Amino acid sequence: MRIGWIGTGIMGAPMAGHLLQGGHTLGVFNRSREKASGLIAGGAAWYDSPRALAEASEVVFSIVGHPRDVEAVYLGPEGVLAAARRPGVVVDMTTSQPALARRLAAAAAERGVTSLDAPVSGGDIGARKATLVIMVGGDRGAFDQVSPLLGLLGRTVAHMGPAGAGQHTKMCNQILIAGTMIGVCEALLYASRAGLDAAGVIDVVSQGAAGSWAISNLGPRMIAGDFTPGFMVEHFIKDMGIALAEAGAMGLALPGLALVHQLYLAVQAQGGGRLGTQALLRALRTLNGLPADNPGVP
Amino acid sequence: MRIGWIGTGIMGAPMAGHLLQGGHTLGVFNRSREKASGLIAGGAAWYDSPRALAEASEVVFSIVGHPRDVEAVYLGPEGVLAAARRPGVVVDMTTSQPALARRLAAAAAERGVTSLDAPVSGGDIGARKATLVIMVGGDRGAFDQVSPLLGLLGRTVAHMGPAGAGQHTKMCNQILIAGTMIGVCEALLYASRAGLDAAGVIDVVSQGAAGSWAISNLGPRMIAGDFTPGFMVEHFIKDMGIALAEAGAMGLALPGLALVHQLYLAVQAQGGGRLGTQALLRALRTLNGLPADNPGVP
Repeated sequence: MRIGWIGTGIMGAPMAGHLLQGGHTLGVFNRSREKASGLIAGGAAWYDSPRALAEASEVVFSIVGHPRDVEAVYLGPEGVLAAARRPGVVVDMTTSQPALARRLAAAAAERGVTSLDAPVSGGDIGARKATLVIMVGGDRGAFDQVSPLLGLLGRTVAHMGPAGAGQHTKMCNQILIAGTMIGVCEALLYASRAGLDAAGVIDVVSQGAAGSWAISNLGPRMIAGDFTPGFMVEHFIKDMGIALAEAGAMGLALPGLALVHQLYLAVQAQGGGRLGTQALLRALRTLNGLPADNPGVP
Repeated sequence: MRIGWIGTGIMGAPMAGHLLQGGHTLGVFNRSREKASGLIAGGAAWYDSPRALAEASEVVFSIVGHPRDVEAVYLGPEGVLAAARRPGVVVDMTTSQPALARRLAAAAAERGVTSLDAPVSGGDIGARKATLVIMVGGDRGAFDQVSPLLGLLGRTVAHMGPAGAGQHTKMCNQILIAGTMIGVCEALLYASRAGLDAAGVIDVVSQGAAGSWAISNLGPRMIAGDFTPGFMVEHFIKDMGIALAEAGAMGLALPGLALVHQLYLAVQAQGGGRLGTQALLRALRTLNGLPADNPGVP
């Protein structure tokens, strides 16, 4: 199939690579061309705009940074929907606003294109290993059509409902992570202050009702003072901001999410925006009069 | 071995039963004798006071309600440490104050007794199935001595450090649960308000970085409107209160735990103290102007 791919960053490049390896004809566009050089060397064709790319593609995928980038890529004068000859299906995999996903779907439909929202979880490791979880909203028929392609990118591809439902599901995912993360940070800080061996505590408590992916995977990194990003603080702040705005628009108060969002803003204010989400520990440390970093001690 | 067991409630009765089935000679005491009737029918001997029980026992275990009950059972005039002939080791399995555990250990040591704190996680199901996780603080030699007995009660028996370390570890466990629970409730409420199929959302998000014991095990009960207790709100409130007081005494601010504690107090204020911890959803529902109960909708 002739596939167009927009956004060849830390997530997009390996994802597009899986489609190339799957035997598809790949065209690419990215804001900075050098980030697409690996794919181009592997056989992908470069296009100078989303519009030009769309004119050569049957299906277009995108994974870019912010909702404003999604808007530009699809609705801008050089965007996908401005193409003279348009793809049948477009799939935005950026974590973005559910309302924008619905707006895109409507604008696409007016031009005879079906738009799906398909944000992912699993981070850059999941992108490289093709183990992403992909949450899709939009037309069921279009979903069935692109499912085999999405199957090359992740281990789970789930249709969650109409346009926007993929983004809403991703918001649920991020709300869960927010709650779990504050529990992990506070528990490890308590453990440390109480003189416990924090690694031993993780071993024990992760076996029962207190268990989570975060305590097992990020807890040990916090103890080690390793704040290298699996998923970046500034991206998580963007996601939580979307979730809070969307919840607000639905008339829904989420006090836990609001608190965690504020603490992540503190991490960013302290210069930690490009650290991993486990750096939430830094805000709780400074809040408690401790140095932000103290490798080996949570 | 001649074992004394104090506290034959929903946790203590099945736990003591495992020791009886393990071939040990069991004596029991409980505030209300009828809750010990099953054990007595099974061959356990009844004693009229913790003191009398202690005089007939080599090791004494206890699992009662509140720190004040622990104090009465060990330090009261009819308590274990008032016995003329005292057991070698006593093991309090109540979730209680780390400071009280240290005080008990000191008071016991003055009388030639070694006291361990050994709170558990796993709830009544874990107690019945002997799959508890047991977190032990206190003298290492005494731990090694009672380890085989604790091994009859749980699948994990871990020595966490000196007196109080078991209780501190349990507090870490509860702090983790508090964070996870608010994430689960808010995510499911968001899912419902956004028109998603909440069960489908759980299936998808539980596979990745948002996964936890709570979302997989309590999420479906929340959706079903099933608030029957695995672990009761009023007991969790007690535990969080201990953790907050202990953290305060250590000069540690835990804003996430404080928020969740407040919301659980709201659940209790609404009459839900004896529901399961998944009833946190009720406080978040009423906070958002929704009826506390709406079976089938989170």
